[in-house]
Amino acid sequence: MRGTVLYGPGDIRFEDRETPRIVEPTDAIIRIALTCVCGSDLWPYRGLQPIDGPTPMGHEYCGFVEEVGSAVRSVKSGQFVIGSFVTSDNTCPNCQYGYQSSCVHREFITRAQAPMLRVPLADGTLVPTPGVPSDDLMPSLLTTSDVLGTGWFAADAANVKPGATVVVVGDGAVGLLGVLSARQMRAERIIAMSRHEQRQKLAREFGATDIVTERGDEGVKRILDMTKGFGADSVLECVGTQESMMQAIHCTRKGGHLSYVGVPHGVALKGEELFFAHVRLHGGPAPVRRDLPKLIDFVLDKKINPGKVFDLTLPLDQVAEGYRAMDERRAIKALLRP
Amino acid sequence: MRGTVLYGPGDIRFEDRETPRIVEPTDAIIRIALTCVCGSDLWPYRGLQPIDGPTPMGHEYCGFVEEVGSAVRSVKSGQFVIGSFVTSDNTCPNCQYGYQSSCVHREFITRAQAPMLRVPLADGTLVPTPGVPSDDLMPSLLTTSDVLGTGWFAADAANVKPGATVVVVGDGAVGLLGVLSARQMRAERIIAMSRHEQRQKLAREFGATDIVTERGDEGVKRILDMTKGFGADSVLECVGTQESMMQAIHCTRKGGHLSYVGVPHGVALKGEELFFAHVRLHGGPAPVRRDLPKLIDFVLDKKINPGKVFDLTLPLDQVAEGYRAMDERRAIKALLRP
Repeated sequence: MRGTVLYGPGDIRFEDRETPRIVEPTDAIIRIALTCVCGSDLWPYRGLQPIDGPTPMGHEYCGFVEEVGSAVRSVKSGQFVIGSFVTSDNTCPNCQYGYQSSCVHREFITRAQAPMLRVPLADGTLVPTPGVPSDDLMPSLLTTSDVLGTGWFAADAANVKPGATVVVVGDGAVGLLGVLSARQMRAERIIAMSRHEQRQKLAREFGATDIVTERGDEGVKRILDMTKGFGADSVLECVGTQESMMQAIHCTRKGGHLSYVGVPHGVALKGEELFFAHVRLHGGPAPVRRDLPKLIDFVLDKKINPGKVFDLTLPLDQVAEGYRAMDERRAIKALLRP
Repeated sequence: MRGTVLYGPGDIRFEDRETPRIVEPTDAIIRIALTCVCGSDLWPYRGLQPIDGPTPMGHEYCGFVEEVGSAVRSVKSGQFVIGSFVTSDNTCPNCQYGYQSSCVHREFITRAQAPMLRVPLADGTLVPTPGVPSDDLMPSLLTTSDVLGTGWFAADAANVKPGATVVVVGDGAVGLLGVLSARQMRAERIIAMSRHEQRQKLAREFGATDIVTERGDEGVKRILDMTKGFGADSVLECVGTQESMMQAIHCTRKGGHLSYVGVPHGVALKGEELFFAHVRLHGGPAPVRRDLPKLIDFVLDKKINPGKVFDLTLPLDQVAEGYRAMDERRAIKALLRP
């Protein structure tokens, strides 16, 4: 088969790779129905995160089980499944605490931008759907694998409650699905920070009540103006830079909740600043597996349509164009069809 | 009158000062019954926090109202009162959120190591006791002004729940009263990290079930050994150094709660480390005023005896010896009698 490999900044190749096969008895092999490019793929693509030689890419996936190892019990050949971007046994104490993305046996999925994928710990990682979902639902189902799961965790970790005022920093697909999640959690006011017209539009479709185009200190000032000077109850930081993190901290009210789900790059928080900010912080790699069954149901019940974040669809062999379009912000998120 | 002034590292003087008087109509003047030296006073005393010329010291106090300004309604002359180390109007949104130590009108109290003290925003800052408490209860009442209030907030911000496993980093008076608070909140296991025999003893009296003498990486290893490798539900960081903060982060289980109440000095948290730690963080200057009525009741009802942290009592004019004894760790906390 052919799969996606990053060779260096801007250098994505779709090239011959070994077809994956069962290695451990707990593995499953998935025939990928849909995969996509993640905002986090852009860090190494832009050279902002060093890579150690040619690196196979992709960690968002859904598809059909092709084969399972001898120890796999909960999924079987032919089933349509979705899995988290981190594998988990779903039984260790960290999993029991609801932090499957810190499972003691976790592995971060890679190589999913390909027609076939080996998923370790299949029983604890994959969730099958009842029957084969219709084609129109598949993009939305794909989002539950990471981008929706991460937006959902952002809203959950920021303690979004009915009636709350919520700020979402970052208008990437995760931020937009943070808006959708906050709406599902019945926030009253959802302020999306975005200066990109198409993303603003989607944010409003997903439930944003207000758009703020300013960022940095100006953005903070706007949020404080909109909250009588006191800040928002819940702030979702969906970028991962020092600027976005500080912006988020300063937008949060005293005792309010700030979540961070963008992998931080070069972020350092000064203890004293944090101390006097009086906010609550929680974040990290989203424990997607925790919420996967619920989010799959939301999609199958057509309560939500998170697949709208895909505004570009490409055949998998044009994956390099997907990266380029997202890098240049021509696309919010690129869907890839093997 | 005479009051306490810090002139430079190790240079505490008890010298002539102007007797405080009403400045604003919302002020009260307190005749101090008891005051004390705070762990945070040691930062500038040790030269680890720069001072801008001679600095009047002291922010923990209880005593009798001598005089009130024309706008004061809730306390009157002759009443015995305790106040927070931060003034608050107790009406602004930050106060309403329960963060009186971030009141929009806050002032940090200083000059309390003196016989008389001016307290701004008396209505929102001071809590009177019903009648004059007996002498034996006064040291415990004094602790509610800061050190117990801070230990209580540490336990509260770390979400201590019945049955929880709790770690307390720091065996100063705040840490010890964090132990007491966790016990009141019915934690099942309370692990105090201390290598000081007398403090270990007091920690056990206050409710610690285990003592760990190791610190840093060794300390973390011990805590992980004691928690099947997964860390504690709630960790109270009561020091404020980089080492203690990292120790606390690494002792917290995934999804667990870490509070920090020691003013951070030179602490910087790396975003990526925090991200993968998967912990929840909350802290800052304790909103003592929020819990003051409850903690005063606990003392008056003799449910708790936090005054045991005072293992040295001095006449106020020997305040310099109080600082020395605490600096040299000969005393846990020095009580001062005007």
